Amino acid sequence: MSGRLIAIDWGTSNFRAFLVDRHSGECLDSVRSDAGLRSLTTEEFPHYCEAQVGRWREGGQVPVYLSGMVGSARGWSEAPQLDVPAGAEDLAANVVAAPGLDNAWIVPGLKVVRDDHVDVMRGEEIQAFGALALAARDSAICCLPGTHSKWAQLKQGKLVDFSTAMTGELFHAVRFHTLPGEPGRGDTPHSERAFAQGLAASRHPAGVLHALFEARSRHLYAGLEGQEVSSFLSGVLIGSEVLAQHGALLANGDEVLLVGSSGLNPLYRQALEAQQLRVKEIDSDAATLAGLLALAERHQSN
Amino acid sequence: MSGRLIAIDWGTSNFRAFLVDRHSGECLDSVRSDAGLRSLTTEEFPHYCEAQVGRWREGGQVPVYLSGMVGSARGWSEAPQLDVPAGAEDLAANVVAAPGLDNAWIVPGLKVVRDDHVDVMRGEEIQAFGALALAARDSAICCLPGTHSKWAQLKQGKLVDFSTAMTGELFHAVRFHTLPGEPGRGDTPHSERAFAQGLAASRHPAGVLHALFEARSRHLYAGLEGQEVSSFLSGVLIGSEVLAQHGALLANGDEVLLVGSSGLNPLYRQALEAQQLRVKEIDSDAATLAGLLALAERHQSN
Repeated sequence: MSGRLIAIDWGTSNFRAFLVDRHSGECLDSVRSDAGLRSLTTEEFPHYCEAQVGRWREGGQVPVYLSGMVGSARGWSEAPQLDVPAGAEDLAANVVAAPGLDNAWIVPGLKVVRDDHVDVMRGEEIQAFGALALAARDSAICCLPGTHSKWAQLKQGKLVDFSTAMTGELFHAVRFHTLPGEPGRGDTPHSERAFAQGLAASRHPAGVLHALFEARSRHLYAGLEGQEVSSFLSGVLIGSEVLAQHGALLANGDEVLLVGSSGLNPLYRQALEAQQLRVKEIDSDAATLAGLLALAERHQSN
Repeated sequence: MSGRLIAIDWGTSNFRAFLVDRHSGECLDSVRSDAGLRSLTTEEFPHYCEAQVGRWREGGQVPVYLSGMVGSARGWSEAPQLDVPAGAEDLAANVVAAPGLDNAWIVPGLKVVRDDHVDVMRGEEIQAFGALALAARDSAICCLPGTHSKWAQLKQGKLVDFSTAMTGELFHAVRFHTLPGEPGRGDTPHSERAFAQGLAASRHPAGVLHALFEARSRHLYAGLEGQEVSSFLSGVLIGSEVLAQHGALLANGDEVLLVGSSGLNPLYRQALEAQQLRVKEIDSDAATLAGLLALAERHQSN
């Protein structure tokens, strides 16, 4: 068995691969590209993957573990979505061989199907298990911000429940496809002031459907500049997401493991702290790597 | 003074004109088209208006009153937005002559500018005053559903406060520009069942940013068909709008004047009644007509 593995997070719009030392958990090399699932046909997946990471494989000895939308019906090959509660060992027991590439494994996603709540996840379950390992916890609430932000509850090493907020995707839809978003379409720098105004607006009693509209009314009558609209909308949406999840899951003073990128983590930290929550930040790439490493240990010992 | 007037509601995407008998309030004739503001240049406004209603004007004797986005910076000529509280007499005192057409008047809009709430309205203020007259009330809470739904509080004949929910515009943005909306892009019939599911989902503790995502997860795992996605999203958004406004403005058993079209009123009635609110429906065209008539009485007596 090789002392290395290759961890890949492959989503709709990007590809990230890491060569990992199994003993130290260290990342020895990495590669990333914009070649998301959307840009490839089914037959291209094994070739693209081999072209990106082939030089690390030692003739196929080094295994590849893939998480993310790569396991969806539109991805390389469909992997199941397991019911919660589930742990890393359940994911390991249900990996799917990636067609056309030897010793390459696609990791399952998770789902919740109840009368009052239906939800799906692919990729963030690995990051949540990795974050738990990196934080040396066996229970936590993880916030994984993004296009479809996930909030995961973990207890004794199992992911027991989660919900998705469409924050990132709505941000894009409002900015590029509504009247209030119109002045915010340019490529403008982040405005602290407008983001803080958006966070405050997210607590408006008339709710988020109103708070978003204040991007327009404040632009007309309250000094919100066109180049600030995008930050204001971001504040409204991230604030609304955190406000709702706080009400649903958390009490003041609780800790949230924030598992995001260096771009999103500071914005979410600000929103979480404004809601009297404590924050422990974990880099999402490091979490993917730690999560796939933990899964590989269980998979190879089966 | 002519015994008739011409009432026009001219918005971003449509034009509606009514010939009205001033004594009976009766609508004698009407014309409507898709020629919204967006489709015309500034110089075209007077010519288009004359072409549509010239045959009713008795050589310019019959006055024209115009409300809606026609009075915005992108419309025919900018009319002010007055601060609340304001009544029909305040609107009448601030009408603006429409350039290039004799005896034609553009009605002001309204605004709220406070630290904690900034909002704007053009056209719905006229409908709210008209609805009040038609319902023979001097105080009410009006719900005016649409692209930008308005909730207006009226007391003793004055509009004292209001807020906007971006419900209609978000419905379009989510349906046509997000992943969960994708299966709902076709022209499908309304589904009672999916709309009711969306209303229920709008009460999810994780909030509307999550409830919208259930369009995807329920499509994958809970039997929500592709042709039902649009009705489900509509239920989530209308339900969220009503839920927030209920919390902000109303107690169980309160009455709402619902001032909408024959397409939207039944959906809003269902959402309002699900929140234990009583509903009195008023047709939005009738409200425009009654509102502009009330305003004209005050304008001509100045």
